[in-house]
Amino acid sequence: MKNEGTTLDPDTEEFRKAGHQLVDWIAEYLGHPERHAVLSQVSPGDVKAQFAASPSRHGKSYELLAREFEEKILPGVTHWNHPAFFAYFAITGSQAGILGELLSAALNINGMLWKTSPAATELETVALGWLRDALGLPSSFFGIINDTASINTFLALAAARESLGLSIRREGMTGRELPRLKVYCSDQTHSSIEKAALALGFGSNGVVKIATDESFRMRIDLLVDAIARDRREGALPVAVVATTGTTSTAAVDPVEAIVEITERERIWLHVDAAYGGSIAIIPEFRGFWRGVERADSMVINPHKWLFTPVDCSVLYTRRPDVLKETFSLVPEYLKTTDSAEINYMDYGLQLGRRFRALKLWMVIEHYGIEHLQEVIRGHIAMARRLGENLEAREDVELLAPQSMGVVVFRKIVRDSSGGVDEMASERLTSDLLSTMNASGKLFVSHTRLRDRYGIRVAVGNGATKWEHLEALLKFL
Amino acid sequence: MKNEGTTLDPDTEEFRKAGHQLVDWIAEYLGHPERHAVLSQVSPGDVKAQFAASPSRHGKSYELLAREFEEKILPGVTHWNHPAFFAYFAITGSQAGILGELLSAALNINGMLWKTSPAATELETVALGWLRDALGLPSSFFGIINDTASINTFLALAAARESLGLSIRREGMTGRELPRLKVYCSDQTHSSIEKAALALGFGSNGVVKIATDESFRMRIDLLVDAIARDRREGALPVAVVATTGTTSTAAVDPVEAIVEITERERIWLHVDAAYGGSIAIIPEFRGFWRGVERADSMVINPHKWLFTPVDCSVLYTRRPDVLKETFSLVPEYLKTTDSAEINYMDYGLQLGRRFRALKLWMVIEHYGIEHLQEVIRGHIAMARRLGENLEAREDVELLAPQSMGVVVFRKIVRDSSGGVDEMASERLTSDLLSTMNASGKLFVSHTRLRDRYGIRVAVGNGATKWEHLEALLKFL
Repeated sequence: MKNEGTTLDPDTEEFRKAGHQLVDWIAEYLGHPERHAVLSQVSPGDVKAQFAASPSRHGKSYELLAREFEEKILPGVTHWNHPAFFAYFAITGSQAGILGELLSAALNINGMLWKTSPAATELETVALGWLRDALGLPSSFFGIINDTASINTFLALAAARESLGLSIRREGMTGRELPRLKVYCSDQTHSSIEKAALALGFGSNGVVKIATDESFRMRIDLLVDAIARDRREGALPVAVVATTGTTSTAAVDPVEAIVEITERERIWLHVDAAYGGSIAIIPEFRGFWRGVERADSMVINPHKWLFTPVDCSVLYTRRPDVLKETFSLVPEYLKTTDSAEINYMDYGLQLGRRFRALKLWMVIEHYGIEHLQEVIRGHIAMARRLGENLEAREDVELLAPQSMGVVVFRKIVRDSSGGVDEMASERLTSDLLSTMNASGKLFVSHTRLRDRYGIRVAVGNGATKWEHLEALLKFL
Repeated sequence: MKNEGTTLDPDTEEFRKAGHQLVDWIAEYLGHPERHAVLSQVSPGDVKAQFAASPSRHGKSYELLAREFEEKILPGVTHWNHPAFFAYFAITGSQAGILGELLSAALNINGMLWKTSPAATELETVALGWLRDALGLPSSFFGIINDTASINTFLALAAARESLGLSIRREGMTGRELPRLKVYCSDQTHSSIEKAALALGFGSNGVVKIATDESFRMRIDLLVDAIARDRREGALPVAVVATTGTTSTAAVDPVEAIVEITERERIWLHVDAAYGGSIAIIPEFRGFWRGVERADSMVINPHKWLFTPVDCSVLYTRRPDVLKETFSLVPEYLKTTDSAEINYMDYGLQLGRRFRALKLWMVIEHYGIEHLQEVIRGHIAMARRLGENLEAREDVELLAPQSMGVVVFRKIVRDSSGGVDEMASERLTSDLLSTMNASGKLFVSHTRLRDRYGIRVAVGNGATKWEHLEALLKFL
């Protein structure tokens, strides 16, 4: 056994060479995303079957690995960078974001404490202050970056649970008499809200899904009724989750009306703006979430529509004290004496914290606010134009009002009396989706609204131009 | 408003140039980490004060941002890459890992579903199969990559809660009669276990910390007593967490004895091998966690001691069905027809999933298992040699048996009768730590064991050689 230490990477020349080649490959890839099928056309097991049962014992050169990547892995990649990726929310990275991520991987710090990299903590504070101002949010909002909206919503609901004053942190939720706990959201709310509620012990029965109006917005009258009924029956409301930009249709719950209720009822309001929040950097669109400044917490994902590579999700809250009371737990080996500064680990579940602020800083500073606004304006304009084009067609029906970057539509088949043949329409629409996605030229996803199957188009990729949507229209 | 779409990155030339410069900078940085102070010497607020109140409106060139990075951010970085970073667990990335992360940022996929990038799902299955075999674990272990051990432990304990058959997923934990729920771990267990328990509604009162023996290993007799007492009092044990490589001293709980108890008592056993698990790739060290193959779940962090950049934590479980029952929740817009394949989103809280398998694959394949073994062998040998050097000194006391890459010691001051002057020893040790860390030449952290303050040295950086530990010895 050696005592002197075998170093992992004896020199940097191989890395330098491989790094240059990789940068060139990426530049070529990003410059020509359309060379690839958007949706990977491999079959289940195809990728796996190409790899040996055991890894290399003696190592492989970067050249060989680059070749394996191109031959074995790349065909199995669905290209989220493709300008005709219209499925889900078209999350979109950026060249600046990639460079930020590269630098972050090289530094490889863990920003759990201020001292474990003061710059990570302070740049997070700076960048989130900038973002908060750009979104028109009040300076009382405290921000923290985590990986996903799933986690940030989970943290917000955990803080809401703690704010009830039931001593849940110390005494837990079982073995004593506690009322049933309820979280309210619309029937269009993202699945992550329900997952968080399950994890936090509210149960799926504790998630009250409020029906939506014809535009898929939460119905305030029904929210009021539900809260009153639950209170009458002895249950305790924990939180209301309003969504500004739902997954299926980018519908916007009426935040201002909801916050009137949550303030009166003293219920935590969490706003899920993971997708829609980004458009608030454009002043003329900012009205959509009026009232958000009175919310207790809010999540927005720069990795969705602010050109930051996954993962980067931001939680803002007016009540960081509650978040800290919920999660802070400092063992001896993490105690520090520089108590003046924030230690972000005190505000969440995860101890490990990548230096995610670096890429967000790179993105905001490299492109500048105006260019970011311009690109998002273009997305919204293109989605609107697509909606108008579709609406003008006799054989197409929009299943929801066009909103933000999202359009949902179906092809319709009329029956002999001129009404819509539901089954035939669904079959035709579903076949159309399959044809589109199998073409490799574009990728759309689907949803179901009031039992109607629709094709969902989300415009949000940084490279998308109108011609890509024209190509979509040709499939009709 | 433009209708044609303003693209974010009109061409790739700037990126290519900036990418090359950044790769060169990183190569230079990784080749000479010792040019920097290990622990950043800035004061709170120093970094923040250098940034303007608002971000750029019109953008900044990559050259300017690179300069700002070097001047404003880098002095605030604590260099986890420095070979004399001995604090916490010296997480250590690698050149291959950086390249993998770069490629992953460029592809920017979300691997939530198989179809959203088949290669992400299947490479994860391949790489985790390789890792499982390299660790000597049985093929019945199902693996999934998440960001941190905090999350993986949380998922494991959530599955344990669900496995109780109390219908917690559907009905929640309150508003009905349920017994108090208990999780057992040693008094040396990592804080993430308690955080997970708080989040899951067990309460801090539900975390039973079992005292440890003279080597800081969980005492089996006390574990048996605690379970029996709790059952007598009507509480329900949810899980036992055994740690193989504790944070303070790298102590190893007796897994084989514990699993005898958890099998008999039908309690979920989770093994926290986040740090220590990596040494199991070396056959001659594998005995330490005997019994782990019978655990219900286990966490190991390749981003700690397997040269993978943060974040990359792996959860293995023999009971993926329970994990899936706990978390699977598939809304319409995420439904797929390719039901034959794994959709990893069904096994966790987070919907968004970076392509982390890519860097793990790069690390394992580029270095090869034998080189990885050799580097870790070297770390363990150096830590042992450091321990022997310290033990031979009259003015030093080891506060725990040397284990894995960890050494904990204090300087001792004798009183007039020849006994240890506790207060003076603590002061001297604490002063020594301050002197070391202020030097910028190395970074150590501290812990407290049986009320004794000690300096903690963790050897685990890929560039560390014996000379760096000799430099540490000189401070004594």
